Parts: sequence; structure tokens; C-alpha cells
Amino acid sequence: MAETPPSAAYRFDTVSFLTDYGTADEFVGVVKAVIRDLAPHVGVIDLTHEVPPFDVRAGSLTLARCIGYVPSGVVLAVVDPAVGTDRRAVAVEVAGGAGVLIGPDNGLLAPAVAMAGGAERAVELTNPDYRLDAAGATFAGRDVFAPAAAHVCNGVDLGELGPELDPAAMIPGTVPLPRAEGDDLVTEVLWVDRFGNCQLNVGPDDLAGWDPRVRLRVGNPGDPSGPTVRTAVRAESFAGIPGGGLGLVLDSYGMLAVCLDQRSAAEELALGPGDQVVLAPLGDDPLPDPPATPVRLGPTR
Amino acid sequence: MAETPPSAAYRFDTVSFLTDYGTADEFVGVVKAVIRDLAPHVGVIDLTHEVPPFDVRAGSLTLARCIGYVPSGVVLAVVDPAVGTDRRAVAVEVAGGAGVLIGPDNGLLAPAVAMAGGAERAVELTNPDYRLDAAGATFAGRDVFAPAAAHVCNGVDLGELGPELDPAAMIPGTVPLPRAEGDDLVTEVLWVDRFGNCQLNVGPDDLAGWDPRVRLRVGNPGDPSGPTVRTAVRAESFAGIPGGGLGLVLDSYGMLAVCLDQRSAAEELALGPGDQVVLAPLGDDPLPDPPATPVRLGPTR
Amino acid sequence: MAETPPSAAYRFDTVSFLTDYGTADEFVGVVKAVIRDLAPHVGVIDLTHEVPPFDVRAGSLTLARCIGYVPSGVVLAVVDPAVGTDRRAVAVEVAGGAGVLIGPDNGLLAPAVAMAGGAERAVELTNPDYRLDAAGATFAGRDVFAPAAAHVCNGVDLGELGPELDPAAMIPGTVPLPRAEGDDLVTEVLWVDRFGNCQLNVGPDDLAGWDPRVRLRVGNPGDPSGPTVRTAVRAESFAGIPGGGLGLVLDSYGMLAVCLDQRSAAEELALGPGDQVVLAPLGDDPLPDPPATPVRLGPTR
Repeated sequence: MAETPPSAAYRFDTVSFLTDYGTADEFVGVVKAVIRDLAPHVGVIDLTHEVPPFDVRAGSLTLARCIGYVPSGVVLAVVDPAVGTDRRAVAVEVAGGAGVLIGPDNGLLAPAVAMAGGAERAVELTNPDYRLDAAGATFAGRDVFAPAAAHVCNGVDLGELGPELDPAAMIPGTVPLPRAEGDDLVTEVLWVDRFGNCQLNVGPDDLAGWDPRVRLRVGNPGDPSGPTVRTAVRAESFAGIPGGGLGLVLDSYGMLAVCLDQRSAAEELALGPGDQVVLAPLGDDPLPDPPATPVRLGPTR
Repeated sequence: MAETPPSAAYRFDTVSFLTDYGTADEFVGVVKAVIRDLAPHVGVIDLTHEVPPFDVRAGSLTLARCIGYVPSGVVLAVVDPAVGTDRRAVAVEVAGGAGVLIGPDNGLLAPAVAMAGGAERAVELTNPDYRLDAAGATFAGRDVFAPAAAHVCNGVDLGELGPELDPAAMIPGTVPLPRAEGDDLVTEVLWVDRFGNCQLNVGPDDLAGWDPRVRLRVGNPGDPSGPTVRTAVRAESFAGIPGGGLGLVLDSYGMLAVCLDQRSAAEELALGPGDQVVLAPLGDDPLPDPPATPVRLGPTR
Repeated sequence: MAETPPSAAYRFDTVSFLTDYGTADEFVGVVKAVIRDLAPHVGVIDLTHEVPPFDVRAGSLTLARCIGYVPSGVVLAVVDPAVGTDRRAVAVEVAGGAGVLIGPDNGLLAPAVAMAGGAERAVELTNPDYRLDAAGATFAGRDVFAPAAAHVCNGVDLGELGPELDPAAMIPGTVPLPRAEGDDLVTEVLWVDRFGNCQLNVGPDDLAGWDPRVRLRVGNPGDPSGPTVRTAVRAESFAGIPGGGLGLVLDSYGMLAVCLDQRSAAEELALGPGDQVVLAPLGDDPLPDPPATPVRLGPTR
């Protein structure tokens, strides 16, 4: 293991940390132990470690939601199904050097890098002097990424960690875009939070000029039970949703979310990340009011 | 965003943090990121983030159990079903300025404030200079409470954060009291911990003079299966409960808890927070010994 | 409570912390609050708090996996079913004073102590000056272990905390050893991680000279459905397991683990900690290839 350059002033004192490791095992703790051992001055902020296992897309969206709030420093993100293969481990400098994102090159970092203004410099983490020796190749968080994060905080230049990469050659992220189909706006659930709020991939601008009441159609038309059609009302807060019905709330990230007040909209509508929700202005819809029970447009049984 | 007053010595270096956010999302991490960005010298102690969603009562009891142990500093507590409405966001000074509790004015803080000696000063967090600008109004933890916590740690006076409130006008907490009915003492489960121990709202003084064996009656007499009657033995430790039966253990907060040794009393008795448990001195009870199986006093089937 | 000796330089600035407390309650947070109150300079690393309740063996194995990575300092470990009885609370010095392990004397610390080179000095934590006064005896983490950890970090000598113990008189840990039975190697699952990988109690040396394909037999022959026999292929990474089948992967701790690529081997094979897995070189086995479906050698139905 390389020593910390004695003359280097510390570059960063914060690592913001996101994984799919969960907390039942010691993975998160051991990564932090390695960071503290190499860079005792660093504080680690746990963004979350409950990204669903192997779910690079969910991890990348979570990281993108965080990136505007993390302090200057290192962002360490590990959702890494291909650990131990020849997928690249990378460090990416952004924002004039105010941040360095470290993780696997599998699209996990890409949306956050883009939101931070794009990659200004990227390297592949290949220098064994800045890795831990390890018995097996399955825990890159501990053996590759944590040491890199610590050394970058200590002031080691990215160029020491491995060869430069063309940022354009890194794996891009994928963020689904809404699309118009006639009067419909076909959207997708990006995220279901703990409270069951379903963030869509549209913001208020996408519904400019629409009535405050919006028709939602969820579920696959091919399903035996057919799609569910409901009315949601635009609201500024959960408690401001009228009458115990569905709300379309401007969430804290500036996106629209399908919500219920103090109940789970995801559960009521059986919605999960990646599911389609079709929005339409209610003016085009024959439904006069939010029905007391869901209307199902399936085959008669 | 207001700058930290350059001449202010840091007032506090600890924020003790409790929410119902869970850890599956990035909410907790983003709040900590905001605090670290504004007050890098501050350490955050996570009390718990697993208060059941929207459960202000559970959150307030948890906070009350913690308050005697948190270091001098800010206590940040967020269980906030009415976020985004006109419910007040407050900061409350206690203990001669040794502590400041920050959160929604919905009863969440009240028991802890009382245990800390009462509110000495309170303000409503309305000054936009000490909030983050946000797209939507649903994440006050990030946009209102975290900045307030950081600025208070930095030495900003409460008076800068918003207008003073009459502490007596804040929403009170509710802590259920036990009541005597003849020889019975009607108690309530305050808390079920991870191990299934059921803390009651009575302490040893409430059972002064009772035999070490106590009759428990749980369950609603109106239920088809009727109430369950069991005998519990007073014990100093879980392992000290005799014979694999129920114990009434003096817990670490000075309350009596219904416990089993290395098993869940909550599961065995189907008890949850808020459930009623009727205690009676066993001298008045015909049951000679803890029965091997629960006695059910329901209708014959 | 004893004061921190004013002349003592701080001895340690890190506490690595493992429990079976979970995070739904405030236990972990209160322990950290006590440490911060007594030793504000200390950083706490959470190794994990999700050891299954009361499972001393699982806790001891987790701690043993961590011990090579924790920084110099205190290791605080609490899985303590006999809390409040006369089981001893201990502090154990290892590695020439570079580390002090603190916890109950029930075998939890023993494997980690052994991996750190053995106990060089041990004391029983009996001095009330270094404990918190408490209403009940059920929360030694808060009242006994956390103060001891903080005071040791502050430089209090172990001899102040209580009388010396003969390290040889402490409760030993138990680590199961594999055994050969003819051509079979009878192993045991030590640990199932979040991803469903099943770590066995054998390393690559135990399979020296074997073919890369290994026969696994899991399940009890006495079960109605009989044992399951499968073929696993040695692989360097999860993604390197061929054909969606079972892999025997060298894990990050140098042990062999039964794995599937991006799926749970524990779920597919119904394996949990402590379960037996019999390995045999495939050369001795009539199975030509990994079967598409599990072969079950049970009674004909």
C-alpha cells in the first residue's frame, strides 16, 4: 500500500457513500474501516445502502437525486454485479475538481456525473499500489474503491491511480423519457419511496396548461384485469390532497409524484419502479369525479 | 442562503437525529449532507430512522427515551405527516441553552422537551434566509430542519430563524397514564422492541407491595377468543425469568416490560404498541402457577 | 462517573461497533450518544447491527471477518442474551495494545481475539466509577460497555476498569471444522450474505488437486425429499460462473462460497448458516454435466 504523500494537504474530508450492500452484513462497515484507516480525517455520509441488489438503474437514479446536495468531496457508489470481471473501476472528476465520483463503470455514476456538469477527467483504477491485497476478487468496495476514495481525499492525484480514460467511452446511464401519444402523456415510475409515493419522469412543465385534475391509467392493457383508471388532483403537499384520493404532488426534486395522504399510492395502485403511468388532461375524460372504487376497464367476467 | 457569521464560535458540534424516513431511500443521507455542507464540524448521531411512517406518538416516545442520553447540542426529529401544510416548524431551547430541539410542532418533541425541563424559548422556522430553496414542499427535513440545525450549531441565534412562539401554544404530547380499576391496574404497551419486549406505562412503584408473581390479562374481552390470562414473574434480567415463562422485567428506562427469555413476548401474546395489559396481584387470582399453555377465557366453542 | 484524566493524551479515536440491536429501536443511537458524551473526539464505525437476535455464533463470525480491517482502537461488540446475569463483561487487549475488544464474555469476541494474535491482557468491567447508573440491568451496551469504550479511548488504563482476568479462563468461540469422509469433504455454511452467497468453512487449499467442477450434496438424507445433488464450478467472480449454474467462488475473505450470478444460491438450495454441504471431486461422480433441474435422491413418489 502506498503511503499518503506527507506533503499533500488533505484534498477532501467527506466521502458520500451509496451501495446495494444492505446493512445486514459487515460490507458497509468494512469499507468505512478501510477509509478510516487510510484517511482518518474523513467523515463518511451514508446516502443509502438499500439500493435493491444488482439494480444499477435504481442506484443511478438515487445518486442523481443526491448529487445536488452532497458536499464537495468524494462520492463513492457501488452497485456492481460484474465485480471481479474486466468491467472497469473508475474515478471521475467533476465541477472543476470539487468532486470525484468513484465506482464501477456500468452506468451507475453517469446520471450524477451529467448533473454535476459532466466528466472533466476520468481514470481507470488499476494501480495495485492503491488497492488492498485480497484473497478473492468479489469485494471491490473494500479492496479497490475504498482505498481509492481515501487516497483521493488524502490528495493523491487521479493520475496516480491508473491510466486516463476518455470520458466519452464510459458506459452511459439510461433515464427514461416521457412521450406524448395523442392527448396522453406516457410516463414511467422512476422511484417508489418508503411512504409509497411514486415519482414519475415528468415535471410540472410537462403538464403546463392542464387542468388540476389529471386522469391516470396504470397497468398493462394485456392483463386479464385490464388497466386501472383513476383521477389524481394536483396538490402542493400530501395533506393537501383532497378527499383521501390520489394526488399528483410536486416532489422535493421537482418531479411529479403519484401520492396518497399518509397511505401508500404504490400499494393501492400496485405500482413499482419502471411501471408505466399514462396521464391525460381530465377535460378529455368522461369521468366526472374520482370514483370511490377503482374503475377497471377489463373484459367482463 | 445566509453565511455562517464569521465571528461566531461554534455553539454545538453534535446533532442527534431521529425520523420515520427509513434508510431505503436517501432522505437521511441527504439531510446529513446538507448539515455537513453548512456545518462541517458537526457530527450526527442517528438515534433511529425506523419510527413507523407517520407515527408521531411512537416517535415522541422514542425521543423521550433518548433525551437523557444525548450530548449537549441539537436534537433533530422529523415525523411529519403534515409536511408542506401550515403546521409550524419550530426550534425549542431547553436546559439553559444546553440543547435545542428542532422539528415539526405536532407533539413529536413535547415529551422530550418536558423531560429536559420544559421549553425556555421557542421560535417558528420561517426565515427564508435559513432555508434551502426547493422545487417542492415535501422534504422539510432537507430544506427547513437540516439548515436550521446546522445554523444553530454554527451559533446563529434562535431569534434569527423566525419569530418567537409562546411555548405553551405548542402542540402537547400525549403519554397514556395507567389507571386502577378495583384490584386491577390497567396499563398500556408503550413500545415493543426488536427482541419483542413490551414496555408498559408503569414502573416498579406502581406495583409496590405486590407479590413477585403478577397476573396479566391481554386482549379485548369483546374478541371472539376472549382475553388471554397469564402469570408473569418479576425478574431482574431476561435470563433470570424462571422456567421459560413470562417475566415482568425492570427495563433500562425504569419501566416494567413484559418479556420472555430469548423469545418475543410480543409475538407470544400478540401485543403491539397501544395495546392494553391489565395487571393484578396474583394473591387475588385463583391460578396457582404459570400454565403450560395460555388459558383463554372466551366463549366455549 | 469518573472524569477523564486531564493529563491523558487520547489513546484511541475510533470505536468499531457491532451488535444484534437492529436499528428499529434507539439502542445503537443511545450507545453512540453515551460515547460521544464521554469522548467527543471519537468516531464510531458501525460494522453491523443486524446480527440475528441472540446469535452469538453469527456475531462472532462477523466480527472475525472484520477484525483484519478495523483501525487501531476499540472494538465494541454486543450480542448478549445473558445481560443482567453474572456473565462477565470484559475488555481484552490485543496486538501490543493496538486494539481493545469490549463485550460480554460469551464467546462473541473469541475468534476475533484469536485472529488478532490472542489476548495479551483482560479485565472484568466491574468498577462502578466507569459505568452509568441505570434503572434496570437490561442495557449493558449503554450502561457498561459504551462507557468502558469511551474511557479506554480517553486513555483510562484497563486496570482501572476492573480486576484482571486470566485470558485462558474466558469463554472460547467455536468455529466448525470441515471433515473428510472417504472422498467427501463435509463442510458447513458459515454465513449467507445479502446476495445469497453461502460461505463455507473451507478454503481453496482444502480442494487442492480437485477438478474445477465439484459435486455438492445439500439437505438431510433423512428428509422425505432426500438430499439435493448439484454440480458447482470453481469461478473467480460471480459473473464468471458459466451458464447460469452454481459456482464455487473464492470469496473476499479467502473462503469458498456457493454462489449464483445475480441470484441467491441460499434461496435456490434452501441453505442457511450452520447447514451442511458435502463436497466431492466430480471425477468420482457419474453426473456428466450440471443438470437443468436439481436431481433429488429421495424416495420414489
